[in-house]
Amino acid sequence: MEENCIFCKIARGDIPSATLYEDEEFRVILDLGPASKGHALILPKKHAANLFELPDETAAKALVVAKRIAGQLKGGLHADGLNLVQNNGAAAGQTVEHFHIHLIPRYQDDTVNVKWQPGELSDADKEEILKLFR
Amino acid sequence: MEENCIFCKIARGDIPSATLYEDEEFRVILDLGPASKGHALILPKKHAANLFELPDETAAKALVVAKRIAGQLKGGLHADGLNLVQNNGAAAGQTVEHFHIHLIPRYQDDTVNVKWQPGELSDADKEEILKLFR
Repeated sequence: MEENCIFCKIARGDIPSATLYEDEEFRVILDLGPASKGHALILPKKHAANLFELPDETAAKALVVAKRIAGQLKGGLHADGLNLVQNNGAAAGQTVEHFHIHLIPRYQDDTVNVKWQPGELSDADKEEILKLFR
Repeated sequence: MEENCIFCKIARGDIPSATLYEDEEFRVILDLGPASKGHALILPKKHAANLFELPDETAAKALVVAKRIAGQLKGGLHADGLNLVQNNGAAAGQTVEHFHIHLIPRYQDDTVNVKWQPGELSDADKEEILKLFR
């Protein structure tokens, strides 16, 4: 546990939350500033700042938990879709430095804006990036 | 394999792609309409329309693959952050009905817009949603 990490305190139950699900390794809560009805957060109890620091075994379980909760939210709330979003770093909009997955139920004609302007993949960028993975 | 599923064809190599990584179960490619430099897609080779249909064992591996590739992208491209986004359903912006995870490297002062206007969690919504999970 990291001192002064609010998500550590919530995940461990030291700060109360609207908990949808809990097991030994995760707590799933409702976001207090929801993008849409049912916006939930998957929190591992063990501190990791972001995806890069998340142990593989926690990563392996996180998406399975996310899948289960996402299905319950979508079915229970009659949502039309759902975004899963996980931000890493302030430049990516991460506001609490404790790994978390956003589950955002979507409804026809809601005003949630999780999208982007598609650019074009230049040959130069493609070659540069492919080289990194050779 | 689903007939006429373009991501099935790409994942299996029937349609060429800028492949960053491949193993028995996944192919990771560069998005041809990138939100930012290094925008990549994690594709399972076996067809699943979305997160709800994804087998648990594939879900368990997908986030581990995502973590590895995300780290390579962020380090190799000196990105300042990274968004992981996974859309389910047309209402959520899903354009190809084959499960995929977007990895979007982020840079200071880029123009990618993966964010939302936080609302407020009403007591009525909270109670309704908590009830679904009891």
